[in-house]
Amino acid sequence: MALVVQKYGGSSVADAQSIKRIAKRIAEARRAGDDVVVVVSAMGDTTDELLDLAGEITPLPPKRELDILLTAGERISMSLLAMAITKLGVKAKSFTGQQAGLLTDAVHGRAQIVDVVPHRVHETLSKGQVAIVAGFQGVSRSNDVTTLGRGGSDTTAVALAAGLGADVCEIYTDVDGIFTADPRVASSARKIDRITYEEMLELAAGGAKVLALRAVEYARRYEVPVHVRSSFTTKTGTLVSGTYGDLIDPNAPAGSSAGQEEAKMEDPIISGVAHDDSEAKITVVGVPDKPGMAARLFEVVAGAGANIDMIVQNVSAASTGRTDISFTLPHASTSTTMAALNAARGEIGYDSLESDDQIGKLSLVGAGMKSNPGVSARLFGALRDAGINIEMISTSEIRISVVTRADSLHDAVRAVHHAFDLDSTDGEAVVYAGTGR
Amino acid sequence: MALVVQKYGGSSVADAQSIKRIAKRIAEARRAGDDVVVVVSAMGDTTDELLDLAGEITPLPPKRELDILLTAGERISMSLLAMAITKLGVKAKSFTGQQAGLLTDAVHGRAQIVDVVPHRVHETLSKGQVAIVAGFQGVSRSNDVTTLGRGGSDTTAVALAAGLGADVCEIYTDVDGIFTADPRVASSARKIDRITYEEMLELAAGGAKVLALRAVEYARRYEVPVHVRSSFTTKTGTLVSGTYGDLIDPNAPAGSSAGQEEAKMEDPIISGVAHDDSEAKITVVGVPDKPGMAARLFEVVAGAGANIDMIVQNVSAASTGRTDISFTLPHASTSTTMAALNAARGEIGYDSLESDDQIGKLSLVGAGMKSNPGVSARLFGALRDAGINIEMISTSEIRISVVTRADSLHDAVRAVHHAFDLDSTDGEAVVYAGTGR
Repeated sequence: MALVVQKYGGSSVADAQSIKRIAKRIAEARRAGDDVVVVVSAMGDTTDELLDLAGEITPLPPKRELDILLTAGERISMSLLAMAITKLGVKAKSFTGQQAGLLTDAVHGRAQIVDVVPHRVHETLSKGQVAIVAGFQGVSRSNDVTTLGRGGSDTTAVALAAGLGADVCEIYTDVDGIFTADPRVASSARKIDRITYEEMLELAAGGAKVLALRAVEYARRYEVPVHVRSSFTTKTGTLVSGTYGDLIDPNAPAGSSAGQEEAKMEDPIISGVAHDDSEAKITVVGVPDKPGMAARLFEVVAGAGANIDMIVQNVSAASTGRTDISFTLPHASTSTTMAALNAARGEIGYDSLESDDQIGKLSLVGAGMKSNPGVSARLFGALRDAGINIEMISTSEIRISVVTRADSLHDAVRAVHHAFDLDSTDGEAVVYAGTGR
Repeated sequence: MALVVQKYGGSSVADAQSIKRIAKRIAEARRAGDDVVVVVSAMGDTTDELLDLAGEITPLPPKRELDILLTAGERISMSLLAMAITKLGVKAKSFTGQQAGLLTDAVHGRAQIVDVVPHRVHETLSKGQVAIVAGFQGVSRSNDVTTLGRGGSDTTAVALAAGLGADVCEIYTDVDGIFTADPRVASSARKIDRITYEEMLELAAGGAKVLALRAVEYARRYEVPVHVRSSFTTKTGTLVSGTYGDLIDPNAPAGSSAGQEEAKMEDPIISGVAHDDSEAKITVVGVPDKPGMAARLFEVVAGAGANIDMIVQNVSAASTGRTDISFTLPHASTSTTMAALNAARGEIGYDSLESDDQIGKLSLVGAGMKSNPGVSARLFGALRDAGINIEMISTSEIRISVVTRADSLHDAVRAVHHAFDLDSTDGEAVVYAGTGR
């Protein structure tokens, strides 16, 4: 008798057949006695089709109107899903973001949730019915429709789970969970059974796309256990949760624990390898090494609207009193940022500008890294042995990221994955089977 | 400086090009100084496509969910239209039925408007912006989305015009206005310049499809002048209004009046001929002529959900004490109604049942009919001369309807249209031109 929030993405509701398939799954959960809240995205390509329509009208649609337009997508999928569940004999009601009490600020296109007041969802659950809620959307104080932007439906699901005090938020996808690396790149990648919010944050920020970064941040803040799993199987997926002690895993035999956690308490625990080829690098050469110069430089960059990721500043050469500053940013922001920096050249007084869109970023994520100097040595050694040059390095408590040439990124992922013993082995496959997967 | 409500149907917003076209028209009205509120239907076939999707899920979708699904259609068209108008440099905001304050009862699929509280529309107009409102939809007291059923967008437009105290409600369509007969049937049909609510009601009830019956009822009750006109021209269309005295026609030269109204005060003024081939006839033969029998019979019919139109009961034959009762109803309701009557045969004690789906109905509508016996004589004479048999007759203050064979209906329309001098002539064409059309 748990309270479960389930989130299904666009591919899970792409057509009538898919909708019927997940309706069956939802009806089964309800019949098993769980209180079920479902968050849905728009069907398949609906959002893109609506964007195309807007594009036919105007290149710059007012954001308020674009939000109204896009939210038509979830309206369609949620009502169809409610019909499909009802047809199976389980009562279901669908709710817009406004009806479900997802209150946001008024920043159209990337609204932030300010409160969740799910009276009608509670009421629906109390009648033993399934509540279906439109993902990605909310309502502002002025009763205007807003959208949450990228990863919006994941965020809706986690926010509702937090607001309702749900036992778990299940994110359904077309893969089995979070993997130690992208299985399309490293075929030996293993599914991760359990991972902390912080590690998941670093993986998502490093390029893992299964779960939206923002939803993980929300889950971490409100301590919502998130279960990432496949909508095509009943296998347990990956549980994202705060600490290793209090995990919920109904399928695991009592007393058992996954292979990774059997290591010594103080050993670093490597979660996985993420990679990202969506960034470019800009280097500002010969910046005067004076107080406030970096601040001014990044004011210019922020003014161009770019989301900066890694920043590296070299120690300045004593002979010149100048330094080089490199940073990575999304491909799409490169040209506007270059233009803004060019315009500010006189003010900042740098020597030259370089941009490079042929880079790749690899991130190794895991707990206990900082206190284990061996981790970075092993990472750099693995890349050296694979003949891969490192162009930038950046570290956090639980992550080491390196920038390489884009065309060696996949080799780098495989080399690092192997060097940290993340590859699937026979022994581990047995553990897999042993926990009922 | 008028306050104008404009309503555009699905064909006027069928694609991006059409939306841009009417956006231009709306922007011009705003630039000319009018306060403009626009009511839109869903794009082209959107509603049918959504119904098909629902049909793929279940044959009997819950009505609440169907309403949520269908209202996605206006959400798309209204936001696109707001974008298109904004692109032309005129600020526009779109509102759902809920946001525009269209409060309804909770009868999903055919909700009745209970109040119109258009605060946000007022606020938008006061800023000099165009307010766009989703047609066909409203919100119930429990904050559930409702739809108004057939002719819903016309009704939304008239209700908003009433609630806002608009000077006129313009209904845009793909024809030039209301005609003396369907121009596809009687090619000589003339556009009607002015018509009273009552006559328009009878024409709509008689089968004229340009304006929804329900919207006319609403307009009559709240005395909203309705201007039915083409979205493809700037010609004046047909003004539907209470009395002939206080019509608004900005294009008419002062002191002029249209040809029809120049006749003597007491002469009947024929508005036009409507026809309808969507009905069938059921005859209950040999009903015992006892008090309450008709009531019981129509209780059975109402229980089958049929919308009865004409009812004719013959004088009972003294020899048998029995009578025949015939009535017309939509084709779609025939089989369920026949089944219900069959089941009640023992109780009612009639002799036999007959159904006939090959009928057509012609209605002649005009003021002053009842006090001019010559009208019906002329009508029946015209049909006799055309060799058309009359199967049923029903009359009101301002209408005479006859049922004919379906395959002689179009001939009947032409014959009657001609007999009442409704055909367009050279002289009238001059009057047309003279009033600037």
